[in-house]
Amino acid sequence: MKTSSFLVCFLVLFLFSCKETHQPKAMDLANATLVDLSHSYSKETVYWVTAKEFELDTVFAGQTDKGYYYAANNFATAEHGGTHIDAPIHFAEGKQTVDEIPLKKLVGSAIKVDVSKNAKNNPDYLVSIDDLKAWEEKHGIQIPEGSIVLLETGFAEYYPNRVKYMGTDQRGDDAVKLLHFPGLDPEAATWLVENRNIHSIGIDTPSIDYGQSQYFKTHVILMTNNIPAFENLTNLNQLPEKDFTIIALPMKIKGGSGAPLRIIGVVN
Amino acid sequence: MKTSSFLVCFLVLFLFSCKETHQPKAMDLANATLVDLSHSYSKETVYWVTAKEFELDTVFAGQTDKGYYYAANNFATAEHGGTHIDAPIHFAEGKQTVDEIPLKKLVGSAIKVDVSKNAKNNPDYLVSIDDLKAWEEKHGIQIPEGSIVLLETGFAEYYPNRVKYMGTDQRGDDAVKLLHFPGLDPEAATWLVENRNIHSIGIDTPSIDYGQSQYFKTHVILMTNNIPAFENLTNLNQLPEKDFTIIALPMKIKGGSGAPLRIIGVVN
Ligand SMILES: [Zn+2]
Ligand SMILES: [Zn+2]
Repeated sequence: MKTSSFLVCFLVLFLFSCKETHQPKAMDLANATLVDLSHSYSKETVYWVTAKEFELDTVFAGQTDKGYYYAANNFATAEHGGTHIDAPIHFAEGKQTVDEIPLKKLVGSAIKVDVSKNAKNNPDYLVSIDDLKAWEEKHGIQIPEGSIVLLETGFAEYYPNRVKYMGTDQRGDDAVKLLHFPGLDPEAATWLVENRNIHSIGIDTPSIDYGQSQYFKTHVILMTNNIPAFENLTNLNQLPEKDFTIIALPMKIKGGSGAPLRIIGVVN
Repeated sequence: MKTSSFLVCFLVLFLFSCKETHQPKAMDLANATLVDLSHSYSKETVYWVTAKEFELDTVFAGQTDKGYYYAANNFATAEHGGTHIDAPIHFAEGKQTVDEIPLKKLVGSAIKVDVSKNAKNNPDYLVSIDDLKAWEEKHGIQIPEGSIVLLETGFAEYYPNRVKYMGTDQRGDDAVKLLHFPGLDPEAATWLVENRNIHSIGIDTPSIDYGQSQYFKTHVILMTNNIPAFENLTNLNQLPEKDFTIIALPMKIKGGSGAPLRIIGVVN
């Protein structure tokens, strides 16, 4: 076969195959691995030490007099507890409430920055600019435009043991100063906002600010820039460091400052 | 170019291109249209006439004495109200609770059966076996294995006007017999369970059984077969009849009979 014939053939078929396969009719989720990154809600669920905990009340459970089985419950909770989202308005006046966050900021391609080696045994660990730059150097790219960024500290392994997970099992205002768990350094939050364009951020601890934070500067920096935060994530160790998708769908509370969040990773 | 050379070239390149493109590294959600199928939660949210309605209580909203803005709320609700999921245990003893439903039944390819032409002006309309067969004839295929099936009655247009949407704005036990809205005929539920293999089902009315149902047979049939139902959906008119994806992520309530549901359609 002549080289020229081969080249023509190659080009025609390459273009043909691209046209066919780059626009699938429906996404192939059937063959993907779905990783549940949410803790469940129960009496065990970890809340902020000052927040109302989860309560489930049985309305009915059993056979009805009409002959069919029926079960239903009511529940009450703080917006911020268990695996949940912080909407920008949580720490930034006038910014988006949870129902106003565009779906495009909650669904899309993601990266994971694994700092568990250093954070796991340091409950005051701050994820730093260097940690973010180390991810970029390792993978030879910048954090891509529009990424959802997940921070893996390894603390999900301690959940729901409050002493190990957040430093205390006491509750109330006086317990706040006893909180110890890793978070994102405000300087790293500033660096992200000024140098990269991320859609949202998540962490496997109770808060995107570390336990000893006084002024919640990381929250303020992110949320002033309409970047929502996912907190109390789990199973981050089942995700790769790049090339996966996050789907984070919060309960749609009108005017909510946050909400319970069901969040999954899609790994091909 | 000889025919034989061409064929070899074709086969080699075809296999090569298939290998490259059938396993994308991350799904291309960035270019898809995301359709929000969930109503938001507020005082307006439509609940069953006997169920506890949504309550939001402000814990704090304003400047703190440390100098940053802060907002947070508590809320209370029935599991079943607004856009929510019925877990199998809602009407079938011993079947899956909401936290036990496999993600594969909540995320995947979907079809829509549009009966709005007949149902929109008939609040006692029952979606029939014929309606399901009409979809199959129109599209020349059976309802695909593992589909999420959505039923569009057009009633979302009446939401949250209770009289138009569900037949009454009265509440309490005596209001149950005043309920009028379309649902799925128990015979059609049986046909689906016996002849097709669907993952889950959804509708844009308050219940998968129609308003005048006495024994909730459609619920019992579906849930005995571990098929969850999505209720009070909206924006179904923005979806095609096939070739789209549903992502339905309920709040993960341990032991829950149902839960608030954030559900989106992904259209390429
Ligand atoms: Zn929060
Ligand atoms: Zn229900």
